[in-house]
Amino acid sequence: MTAVAEARQREILQAAAACFSRRGFHQATMQDICAEVGLSPGSVYRYFRSKDDLIAALVEADRASHIARIEAVRDEPDLFVALQALADQTLDSLNDPQKRPLIAEITAETQRNPHVKELVRRSDTAILDSLAETLRLAGERGAIDPGLDPRATAELLVAVVDGLSWRKSLYPERDAARDAALVRTMLARFLRPGRADLHDSSPKGPPNGKE
Amino acid sequence: MTAVAEARQREILQAAAACFSRRGFHQATMQDICAEVGLSPGSVYRYFRSKDDLIAALVEADRASHIARIEAVRDEPDLFVALQALADQTLDSLNDPQKRPLIAEITAETQRNPHVKELVRRSDTAILDSLAETLRLAGERGAIDPGLDPRATAELLVAVVDGLSWRKSLYPERDAARDAALVRTMLARFLRPGRADLHDSSPKGPPNGKE
Repeated sequence: MTAVAEARQREILQAAAACFSRRGFHQATMQDICAEVGLSPGSVYRYFRSKDDLIAALVEADRASHIARIEAVRDEPDLFVALQALADQTLDSLNDPQKRPLIAEITAETQRNPHVKELVRRSDTAILDSLAETLRLAGERGAIDPGLDPRATAELLVAVVDGLSWRKSLYPERDAARDAALVRTMLARFLRPGRADLHDSSPKGPPNGKE
Repeated sequence: MTAVAEARQREILQAAAACFSRRGFHQATMQDICAEVGLSPGSVYRYFRSKDDLIAALVEADRASHIARIEAVRDEPDLFVALQALADQTLDSLNDPQKRPLIAEITAETQRNPHVKELVRRSDTAILDSLAETLRLAGERGAIDPGLDPRATAELLVAVVDGLSWRKSLYPERDAARDAALVRTMLARFLRPGRADLHDSSPKGPPNGKE
């Protein structure tokens, strides 16, 4: 694909994300998306033939960006510090006013649409595999407790992010970044027990998440 | 309300939960629910006038049962052990083949129906307040680290349960009880750092959630 075509695809996906967030997946139409991106239906259909195609591409883009960030952790000198930073970054992204309703829309759609559910499962499994491999390496290098099962730990950490994402969806006025301090404490204690909570303190808040 | 009326209400709610789980909240009709419970529409309408009334009563029943279990922890001699047992029990309930799709239905409905969202928010806030009070007492009695902010910690723990509930909804074939061992390890290390992970071992699995 040419660079122009790739840029065009990205623009269409951004427009689709905006429309799905604003109007909901079912209410938003292909016409809304064409209007949002300022392209003719013919131009949009060249890349995406349906809303299902668009949702698949959005899930795929989300998977790719998560995995890129998880893999980047492996190149860092201190994998524990890098994992803390990854957690901060991921929680911070929940405050994105467009991303949060989009996650909520896709989550709801998994309940109704087996095709979307399968897409989300495949994406989720790839993210878990990648995080488990990063945690395995962190254990091997002594950055975290090597006795923790990497895959089960990855599932628990992803559950924390998903659970906080749901809280943000239930209380949009909530500042998800405020959870970061307490998640840091939890990660420090859970992933490397017995060491001082060196990385508890964060510019974003006091050690224990207290106000 | 008489005991008979209360029993009748419970039967109708059970039938509604079964219908919503099986067919989805939007697809299930009041007629389906009448047929399921074996009562005439007149008898059902005496207690619940709409599906919205039924969903409100189901959310309320869920809130009451969570709060009863959270408050019961306060009477136990060792609040940490009781909190671990509460976590086990809550995770185990995610395996209930009827409860899980019902949670998923109600969750999805919060995205579409502001009235249901407000119901769920009120119920969730009451559960968080109750759990925060139990954690505060546990800190006061030295059962857990008194330096942890009770409310923020309650939100993080509820997020873990919600996140694991979403994983169960995405992978219904998953055994949520298998998470219990790792959640025990996480709770022991996070809530009372520096003590031996006395309560890591569980009859349900090895210390670190390894297979």
